[in-house]
Amino acid sequence: MLAHRLIERKRDGGRIEPGEWRALALAYAKGHVPDYQMAALLMACFLRGLDRGETSALTEAMLTSGDRLDLSHLQKPRIDKHSTGGVGDKVSLILAPMVASVGVVVPMMSGRSLGHTGGTLDKLESIPGFRTDLSLAEAREQIEAIGCAMMGQTPEIAPADKKMYALRDATSTVESIPLIASSIMSKKLAEDLTGLVIDMKRGSGAFLPQLEKVLELAAVMIQLGADHNCPTVCLVTAMDRPLGRACGNALEVEEAIAALKGEGPPDLMAVTYALGAEMLVLAGAATDIESARADLENAIATGKAAKRFQKIIEAQGGNPGVVDDPAVLPQAAECEIFAAPRRGFVARIEPRTIGRGIIEMGGGRTKVEDIADPGVGFVITTRPGDWVEVGEPLATIFARDRSGISSGRQALRNAITIADEAEPPLPLISHRVSSAGVEDYPQT
Amino acid sequence: MLAHRLIERKRDGGRIEPGEWRALALAYAKGHVPDYQMAALLMACFLRGLDRGETSALTEAMLTSGDRLDLSHLQKPRIDKHSTGGVGDKVSLILAPMVASVGVVVPMMSGRSLGHTGGTLDKLESIPGFRTDLSLAEAREQIEAIGCAMMGQTPEIAPADKKMYALRDATSTVESIPLIASSIMSKKLAEDLTGLVIDMKRGSGAFLPQLEKVLELAAVMIQLGADHNCPTVCLVTAMDRPLGRACGNALEVEEAIAALKGEGPPDLMAVTYALGAEMLVLAGAATDIESARADLENAIATGKAAKRFQKIIEAQGGNPGVVDDPAVLPQAAECEIFAAPRRGFVARIEPRTIGRGIIEMGGGRTKVEDIADPGVGFVITTRPGDWVEVGEPLATIFARDRSGISSGRQALRNAITIADEAEPPLPLISHRVSSAGVEDYPQT
Repeated sequence: MLAHRLIERKRDGGRIEPGEWRALALAYAKGHVPDYQMAALLMACFLRGLDRGETSALTEAMLTSGDRLDLSHLQKPRIDKHSTGGVGDKVSLILAPMVASVGVVVPMMSGRSLGHTGGTLDKLESIPGFRTDLSLAEAREQIEAIGCAMMGQTPEIAPADKKMYALRDATSTVESIPLIASSIMSKKLAEDLTGLVIDMKRGSGAFLPQLEKVLELAAVMIQLGADHNCPTVCLVTAMDRPLGRACGNALEVEEAIAALKGEGPPDLMAVTYALGAEMLVLAGAATDIESARADLENAIATGKAAKRFQKIIEAQGGNPGVVDDPAVLPQAAECEIFAAPRRGFVARIEPRTIGRGIIEMGGGRTKVEDIADPGVGFVITTRPGDWVEVGEPLATIFARDRSGISSGRQALRNAITIADEAEPPLPLISHRVSSAGVEDYPQT
Repeated sequence: MLAHRLIERKRDGGRIEPGEWRALALAYAKGHVPDYQMAALLMACFLRGLDRGETSALTEAMLTSGDRLDLSHLQKPRIDKHSTGGVGDKVSLILAPMVASVGVVVPMMSGRSLGHTGGTLDKLESIPGFRTDLSLAEAREQIEAIGCAMMGQTPEIAPADKKMYALRDATSTVESIPLIASSIMSKKLAEDLTGLVIDMKRGSGAFLPQLEKVLELAAVMIQLGADHNCPTVCLVTAMDRPLGRACGNALEVEEAIAALKGEGPPDLMAVTYALGAEMLVLAGAATDIESARADLENAIATGKAAKRFQKIIEAQGGNPGVVDDPAVLPQAAECEIFAAPRRGFVARIEPRTIGRGIIEMGGGRTKVEDIADPGVGFVITTRPGDWVEVGEPLATIFARDRSGISSGRQALRNAITIADEAEPPLPLISHRVSSAGVEDYPQT
């Protein structure tokens, strides 16, 4: 009967109060509210919207429907990064050990790949033995010992969100800013953070392609952070092309390890340093972005960051030898160079087409229960704006077999557009959004 | 996957095509579309609306999700009446035998009481032995023999509507004009009608109290009728007070039998004759309303109508002796006169309060599975506008026991307002709506 009244009120454009959200989330998590009532409510929320207070209350309600990490005894700042998801985005793999290596606690809870975008957990699990299913107690212990854990959402965390997210997926109620924001934030707040940095992707390969929508979501996330004592900063970064060169789970781990050793591609490093510097400033571990960046560059140059990744891998059951010898990663049976079919400017490298190509080759998921082949993918060495001659190598395809090579070739043909004129790509990092508002990000 | 796309389209204000409605209704009736997806779609329909073509296609889709009566071999006009529901509304019990007795086929499928309004099936079942659960084959045979059957919606009729109606009730998506209209019409069309008359109640005791909404629903019903070769006429009648004097299942049967014998209260007879005359004109059995009315008055005066009711009762297993001796109906153990607590004008007799009072006394339903006590209720002999002296009898309360009498007394106290000034009640029949548009109903 509770749900009935709330659906009716939201349907008519009314407001649901914090106590009502709490009761609803708890009842739903326990199975006392049927999916069909929640589905009707979610559609009403989608079409009528939630105001700031409701979005905040829903976040809190989903958070308190489950357990959370308690890290307050560490008496240290605890900062995480969230990304809205992209292709080739292996930033977390570099960022978490790098930031932890300079003394900031990083309790990182990540997701799996779904659709065309990759997932940090799948990448980590391509390291032989690596376990991402840490319990809250294990995570806590590891964070105490080495300042970082890289794990999945445990079943105890925000169970109401978990059920609601699956239901939203089945009922076409995903693309709602307040529902997206409260879902992300309820999980992040369960990490007991003192600050959060969000990589908000924009462009054709992003979940929300339009800048306007991205900035709207950023504003809501920052409000939610402020409402829950978790200062939040968003950087808006480009996802109109893949980030870095490698796309595919094991290939991305290899690139991340290279990056931790100072050999990362410039775009990947620029985004990683920018996000890391914000984390250090939020933590109070640096007074400004410039000095934070210098600290992080030092962590890479001295090998501290790479060593911290090795410790994390070891703590989570993985083969730490991977840092010295990436050949221990799963390897694709077949590989082939992809050459430019014509001369001209590389006008576009479409991330969705790349991401879908990897799924086609067996390296991704269309359903949560699919098993991804970690070895397959692409290393794309050309960038939008490059001038290329016909026959010039643009990428390498890694596949299980010849049919995988052939579908990978088709994906690259569709993804990479060569034209007579260059098309200006989006700026790599275009905006910084914080409680102070939206600023243009300084272009170097 | 089908449902997913349709939800998304309706959510964004798009249109669902006839073939899609058909596939959806069939899949839902068979359990291939889960309730949560249908709930999300219904909320999107509620908030985005359905255009005329969609409402018509949804009606057709629910109709064709199941079986229907086939009466075309009779080669006679087949007319039914539908009411949007009220308190004291026993019109169907008089109308069906009266219209059938002048040679028009009446395949009448009715509903049960729910909430404060009564239901024809419950009233009929207060006649000892009366069966309303006729199969389609039984109904067909009876209609062939005596021109009328009075039955419930069989499980084979519009199963998609049956499931959707229950789901709408649980998800606060009931009060949507296109959803209401298509639900009613899908069941009525299953009776294989050649014409339909609808009693659209307005006023405080009606499902849709506001005239504006009533006229909107009437317009949609008339369009749906036109789209399905079932010319439809609506009369807008008053439900700001109970219709007739008796409220309660057995009491209403008794009043209906009196009416069939020419002893019905004036308001009840006026509404019954008005609806019946429209049925005769729709059937082509009379050329105009005046001559139709004369035929019906004759059917009452000669006893033809009462005799037809006796035949219907007999055909459906009931005790036909009830027509001659209503004392065979269930009787309440206790009764008590309700007297005017002060002198003044009867300003209001609130139908919802009366209807809820009957439920309170055990004579109605709050859930579909509740069992109603047929004997309880009220006979209210005063009307809005009457001048009454203190202590003057206004009504009789019929109850199971003293506690029922006491809650009945409380209900009447709340329902009947006596004031220094009379309040003008709504005109008994205010509008006639047909394919020609809305006309004021002639006031006599």
